Amino acid sequence: MQVLIVGAGAIGSLYGALLAKAGVEVAVVSRSDYESILGGGIHIRSPLGEWLFKPKAVYREVGEAKPAPDYLILCTKVLPQLDRAALIRKALGPDTVIVLIQNGVEIEDEIALAFPEHELISGLAFVCVSRTGPGRVWHQAYGQLKLGTFPCGISPKVQELCQAFERAGIHAEATADIVAARWSKCVWNAPFNPLSVLSGGLTTDLLLTEEPLIRALMAEVVAIAKALGHPLPPEIIDQNIESTRRMPPYETSMLLDFKAGRPLETEAILGNAVRAAYRVGVKVPHLETVYALMRLRELQLAQHRA
Amino acid sequence: MQVLIVGAGAIGSLYGALLAKAGVEVAVVSRSDYESILGGGIHIRSPLGEWLFKPKAVYREVGEAKPAPDYLILCTKVLPQLDRAALIRKALGPDTVIVLIQNGVEIEDEIALAFPEHELISGLAFVCVSRTGPGRVWHQAYGQLKLGTFPCGISPKVQELCQAFERAGIHAEATADIVAARWSKCVWNAPFNPLSVLSGGLTTDLLLTEEPLIRALMAEVVAIAKALGHPLPPEIIDQNIESTRRMPPYETSMLLDFKAGRPLETEAILGNAVRAAYRVGVKVPHLETVYALMRLRELQLAQHRA
Repeated sequence: MQVLIVGAGAIGSLYGALLAKAGVEVAVVSRSDYESILGGGIHIRSPLGEWLFKPKAVYREVGEAKPAPDYLILCTKVLPQLDRAALIRKALGPDTVIVLIQNGVEIEDEIALAFPEHELISGLAFVCVSRTGPGRVWHQAYGQLKLGTFPCGISPKVQELCQAFERAGIHAEATADIVAARWSKCVWNAPFNPLSVLSGGLTTDLLLTEEPLIRALMAEVVAIAKALGHPLPPEIIDQNIESTRRMPPYETSMLLDFKAGRPLETEAILGNAVRAAYRVGVKVPHLETVYALMRLRELQLAQHRA
Repeated sequence: MQVLIVGAGAIGSLYGALLAKAGVEVAVVSRSDYESILGGGIHIRSPLGEWLFKPKAVYREVGEAKPAPDYLILCTKVLPQLDRAALIRKALGPDTVIVLIQNGVEIEDEIALAFPEHELISGLAFVCVSRTGPGRVWHQAYGQLKLGTFPCGISPKVQELCQAFERAGIHAEATADIVAARWSKCVWNAPFNPLSVLSGGLTTDLLLTEEPLIRALMAEVVAIAKALGHPLPPEIIDQNIESTRRMPPYETSMLLDFKAGRPLETEAILGNAVRAAYRVGVKVPHLETVYALMRLRELQLAQHRA
């Protein structure tokens, strides 16, 4: 089993390192950390231990990766300025399975349309992990994965991949409706990620002081998912509120990106949700307000940088 | 005609100075600039000229003002932490007319209920004016007033006050429906003021890149006004968009307050609008989202200061 990780940031490095631990041959593509990974591998600090992940090969460009892998795991952010299909095209062999471990909703179509002959596995990571320097990754907490065949089902390839992650000590759950799983995750992401930025940096506990707004945003996500044929369990909103209330004060990943000046996944999380709502005729006034405000916030950031 | 200005900030100083120019006896209450105004008056720089306004009297506290004025003009911000009725009570004689030159919607009831025996004039200033230092006011542009008896009508006292302002070179329009005038101003304020803050500081021209959101917020304000019995002209939204498009890039007053660390009139502009909507059963999802986000933004500011 040969795996190529494209996008060896925090997520890609961690899951690549875990697969390597499970005996998989893992190569990585890293443009920014190429030298450091080539020279010294990737140091992983994790609740699962501390170890050095030495990839089987390190590439600066996807096109250099030979031979074609069994699985190409794409772990980049989903950003409008990144053409993901163009990024991975050169590394695909005829039998390569494409795996997305990426955030957002409705992020698969672009890849499925570009590569209709390839099996596509869509995945979500529930993990707290950050890159602390070149070739250094700190896995702070959680780590479980949800993986499913896109658009639905659990193929043997999904099962094989889940088993490899499980061997490495990570809970990897195969799901027959990964699209529903994406909307389910979006129930939390759609309110908490943008509100953490628009509030000027509040942690989750303080965002909950506006619980009615958070519930309204969650309800709109639930309504979109239902109209798309992926009804979510009725208790999902209460559960998300309760579990967030029990969490320690938490800075969302979008807030961390914002503070670090990194690009934000506004389109993957909010933009795609709002566009899906328009397509199926669901009214989402709270989401569209937050989405428009995030675009203004990002316009201001761009102006400020220019 | 004796006038007492309570709140000699930029607005109060300017309109007090204009009335004095028109021959009215004007005293002022200023806690923060007391020494400087007492010693040197208030320097006014304006398209109407540059002059020194020497109030007939300067008081540090409202309770010191004697005798009771014919008109008490309240020019403070409308903030939850400021009890306006308590502030002005001690300066009212039996025949004192209370005049509000203040921002927001539904800001009169509190005063009308506290002083049912007093005539209440409600007023709006359309003006670009700022305090540039103790006893120094820069009137940059505009200046027109709308004044009306609350809850409706044009009393002789309103006419008298308008005439005094007109003598000073300011257009002061008497309106029989000042409540409608407030909602009309809110059509612009409700979107542009908070969006300028939530966007991180964008000027009006850039806020207009999210014109659909701005129109949605305006439409909700129009719907509230209609349900309250103050229908606004149907072209009001187009007119506001067009006139803003023709303006030079403009930082809203709320943005200037925000940048200067001054308190924001979120409750007077947005909170009161949303509460009015709930009272009359009008759905305002865009307004309530922006309102909740402003509260989060202000919570973050308060945390940051603490």
